[in-house]
Amino acid sequence: MSDTAHRARPQNDPALLPPAIAAAARLADSTLEALLPRPAGRQARVQEAMRYAVMGGGKRLRPFLVLHAARLFAVPESQALRVGAAIECLHTYSLVHDDLPCMDDDDLRRGRPTTHIAFDEMTAVLAGDALLTFAFEILADPATHAHADVRCALIARLAEASGHSGMIGGQVIDMLAPSFIKEGSFGVDDVIELQRKKTGQLFEFSCEAGPILAQAGAEDRARLKAYAEEMGVVFQITDDLLDVTSTPEKTGKAVGKDAGMGKQTLVTLLGLEGARAEARRRAAKAVEALGPHAARAPELSGLPFFLLDRDA
Amino acid sequence: MSDTAHRARPQNDPALLPPAIAAAARLADSTLEALLPRPAGRQARVQEAMRYAVMGGGKRLRPFLVLHAARLFAVPESQALRVGAAIECLHTYSLVHDDLPCMDDDDLRRGRPTTHIAFDEMTAVLAGDALLTFAFEILADPATHAHADVRCALIARLAEASGHSGMIGGQVIDMLAPSFIKEGSFGVDDVIELQRKKTGQLFEFSCEAGPILAQAGAEDRARLKAYAEEMGVVFQITDDLLDVTSTPEKTGKAVGKDAGMGKQTLVTLLGLEGARAEARRRAAKAVEALGPHAARAPELSGLPFFLLDRDA
Repeated sequence: MSDTAHRARPQNDPALLPPAIAAAARLADSTLEALLPRPAGRQARVQEAMRYAVMGGGKRLRPFLVLHAARLFAVPESQALRVGAAIECLHTYSLVHDDLPCMDDDDLRRGRPTTHIAFDEMTAVLAGDALLTFAFEILADPATHAHADVRCALIARLAEASGHSGMIGGQVIDMLAPSFIKEGSFGVDDVIELQRKKTGQLFEFSCEAGPILAQAGAEDRARLKAYAEEMGVVFQITDDLLDVTSTPEKTGKAVGKDAGMGKQTLVTLLGLEGARAEARRRAAKAVEALGPHAARAPELSGLPFFLLDRDA
Repeated sequence: MSDTAHRARPQNDPALLPPAIAAAARLADSTLEALLPRPAGRQARVQEAMRYAVMGGGKRLRPFLVLHAARLFAVPESQALRVGAAIECLHTYSLVHDDLPCMDDDDLRRGRPTTHIAFDEMTAVLAGDALLTFAFEILADPATHAHADVRCALIARLAEASGHSGMIGGQVIDMLAPSFIKEGSFGVDDVIELQRKKTGQLFEFSCEAGPILAQAGAEDRARLKAYAEEMGVVFQITDDLLDVTSTPEKTGKAVGKDAGMGKQTLVTLLGLEGARAEARRRAAKAVEALGPHAARAPELSGLPFFLLDRDA
């Protein structure tokens, strides 16, 4: 990178990101390790499966977002980490159920056998259910925030982001997409809307949690939400690019599945170069959305550009 | 019934129950009808499945318990009905997942095709997930109670009652029971503990919700919880008796499954007469646990005796 380019966007330096992501992942991991139930009694098997699914590595991108958005508003780290843990439990449940034979039927996740392979289908269904339930249990606990109003706001927003019109809605649209495609009515905007629900809403909640915890104003919350929306598109495009260009060794999961399943993505619709250009455009918009916070949160500003370069 | 018997336990009159249960079910149904999302947009299919699963009849026993326990503490009916609706959404999700091919593999529920038969497995998994999420969304809403502390207390208790050490824990123990039986270590106390987790905890929460909504004292909450614990055993024994003695036409679901699957129940362990005697003993203990509330809530006092006589 030339000096000029470096000066032009000092806060968008992707080199900042790997150590920052690793540091947040360590914090997220130790929080999850402490919070997740210890296997005990005759129901130990489902608690083992919960831990297996959650503690299987993962980049912990959502806790990273919670942490850095929360720092902008001087939220105590312990609060941000609890919310990050709740989101990670919820995200993991969606992966466990998504991997089931009746859903995407995946054997590999984060480089290890998926939960229904390592245990069995019944245990995977129940462990997913238990992780979803546990996410709300973490948020309802006074340790997450002294004010119950704030805890309820977090719970309401997480339920909305992950429910029938949010993440689950996105999963349903994804599963029905082949029939929409056949009807000839599924273009770029539809793919963006699908992905915003399926993965974007949880990113949005991750970024809004900080301002919610700080009881910040609506403008701040809107900025973080808009950042997350653009960043989510970058994440999704680069994820779809990896499905075309990467290997299972690098991503820790099956690749080439989108083409095999006839899925429509921004990569299939815009082509490799068109999709990359759209991702770059969205990365810039994400930083713009942060407004005055961009310079104060180089980790958030740098993330979309880091995603553009990722190979896993 | 002789006049003497009638005078001896006026509050335990099972004849009161059918109209009271029907009335509560009508209220629960109209609340659920109003609260459940209307199918809209491309994710309409999962919202249709949510409605199909929830609005399929059912006795609405849990909302009945919430309503009558709440009346004891002068809780506004609208609050009790919202909590009852949340519990019914959560209860329904557990049935939808329990009926899946990888779980109990049932085709019939409440006299209709189960959700994965009427829709498909993928939709059933997601509709269950969405109902679980929606239960917490209902509770977090200020319409459920003006004080966020109360809403958080409801959410925390429901998550505990239905999570890895509660209902889901019970489902896991139920699924592993054959191996515990083989090891020769699964007797009456183990069956009671399993069932207390699998079905009892949600009854307990249904009865505790009233005192929680009213911010009543610990003693009142303990009374209602103890009532629910004993009533839950009556419910389970009579449910197990129906599995032996009833028909699918009456119960709206498959019968004779326990014996076919080598399941241990209080009926297999104590015999028909022994189990009936235990249920009668527990019915009396349930009313006793209510203490001074027994006479003021004839619907609650009568319920265990009504269950003793039920044929569906």
